[in-house]
Amino acid sequence: MNDEHIVSSFDEDLNNIASLILEMGGLVEVQISDARTALLSRDPNLAEQVVSKDSGVDKLETAIDNAAVGLIAKRQPVARDLRTVVVAPKIAHNLERMGDLAKNIAKRTLVLARSQPITAPNNTIGRMCDMVQQMTNEVLGAYVKRDTVVAEQVRQRDEEVDYMHNALFRELLTYIMEDPRAITPCMHLLFIAKNIERIGDHTTNIADQIHFMVHGEVPEQERPKSDDTSSTMIENEIEPR
Amino acid sequence: MNDEHIVSSFDEDLNNIASLILEMGGLVEVQISDARTALLSRDPNLAEQVVSKDSGVDKLETAIDNAAVGLIAKRQPVARDLRTVVVAPKIAHNLERMGDLAKNIAKRTLVLARSQPITAPNNTIGRMCDMVQQMTNEVLGAYVKRDTVVAEQVRQRDEEVDYMHNALFRELLTYIMEDPRAITPCMHLLFIAKNIERIGDHTTNIADQIHFMVHGEVPEQERPKSDDTSSTMIENEIEPR
Repeated sequence: MNDEHIVSSFDEDLNNIASLILEMGGLVEVQISDARTALLSRDPNLAEQVVSKDSGVDKLETAIDNAAVGLIAKRQPVARDLRTVVVAPKIAHNLERMGDLAKNIAKRTLVLARSQPITAPNNTIGRMCDMVQQMTNEVLGAYVKRDTVVAEQVRQRDEEVDYMHNALFRELLTYIMEDPRAITPCMHLLFIAKNIERIGDHTTNIADQIHFMVHGEVPEQERPKSDDTSSTMIENEIEPR
Repeated sequence: MNDEHIVSSFDEDLNNIASLILEMGGLVEVQISDARTALLSRDPNLAEQVVSKDSGVDKLETAIDNAAVGLIAKRQPVARDLRTVVVAPKIAHNLERMGDLAKNIAKRTLVLARSQPITAPNNTIGRMCDMVQQMTNEVLGAYVKRDTVVAEQVRQRDEEVDYMHNALFRELLTYIMEDPRAITPCMHLLFIAKNIERIGDHTTNIADQIHFMVHGEVPEQERPKSDDTSSTMIENEIEPR
């Protein structure tokens, strides 16, 4: 009887942590989506909202950290129960970073709203945003259902984000070469593209944590990585005007 | 007697984790220092070494994660002992990211070694690298000694890194505006500068963890942040050639 009580309280504590993660993940999804809308419509008011709402995301990370440490101290879980608790702060940390990246996109949008409009890359940027937002949604679903198959799909999908990032990176460099006066907006778009690519990376980190939570080890197979912008070299075929 | 034995084994396990963190931190310091040397001398061989040595850093993160989870499961520590164990994976994660950033600097150095030489920013970049390497060294010392005063000094010092980053960011933009053919090297230098600034941020995260380990809460005072490159707007006074 007493034993049952302890187990069910433990489950309650675990569910509490899971709810906090879902709440945090939900906020981050909205932040990504709002940052996308603000960026594509160059809407400074919505961008300001994204910036100001980031502190709510940060607070949830602290709440999850405290809940995890409290649960370990109180219940001293072992094996899979322990792993379930241990991954929570790691997942929360990834979500916090994703929130930060969305905030940074919003900050840069405030500058873009005052710059020369460079709208050609909007399509690619919009698709990249949609993809990482969907990956965020799916990896949170995989976390709740302890579904390592969906988690693995998210991991694999990140390669597409990398490909889009590479293409966008090169596209933006050519705009700067064609017209150096476009440097301010293009520079911010380059960092925004990098931020979106990093959000994708964080969803794959969460997928790894789900795998660890379920199987007790991180995935063996290396994640396919195709972001080669660190090695990009543009030949100067376009003569500067 | 038995009690003493348990306590001393616990201390041994804790020391083992601390040793792993110091080993990892030592590797990361060397990676930062080698990435700096490779970058300033445009040395592709040393850059390749930095890239290949990153996996050693990653392995130590996994070792620290496992040691921390094992210790919690075996010893079920509470209060400050528990906090000391809980911060270890967080510190390891920050060190892993710092290693990644050093690797990324090295990757970009491989491109820079084949590009038009832009050496004017070498001084600022060298000073930024020195500063974050010293911050890394000091924050690791603060971790071992549980010295929150030194940890706080590291946190405060990060503002200087931000100031240097802002200046370097603007300097690099002007080079691109003056000569759009310099876009490839300048672009990589911009991302390198951002990487160094991020390494500084990670040392302040570690400082926060030290504060939490000792006092059971994160520092109240907001860290002074002065990186305003997300809002940088360059007026186009320099006409493109």
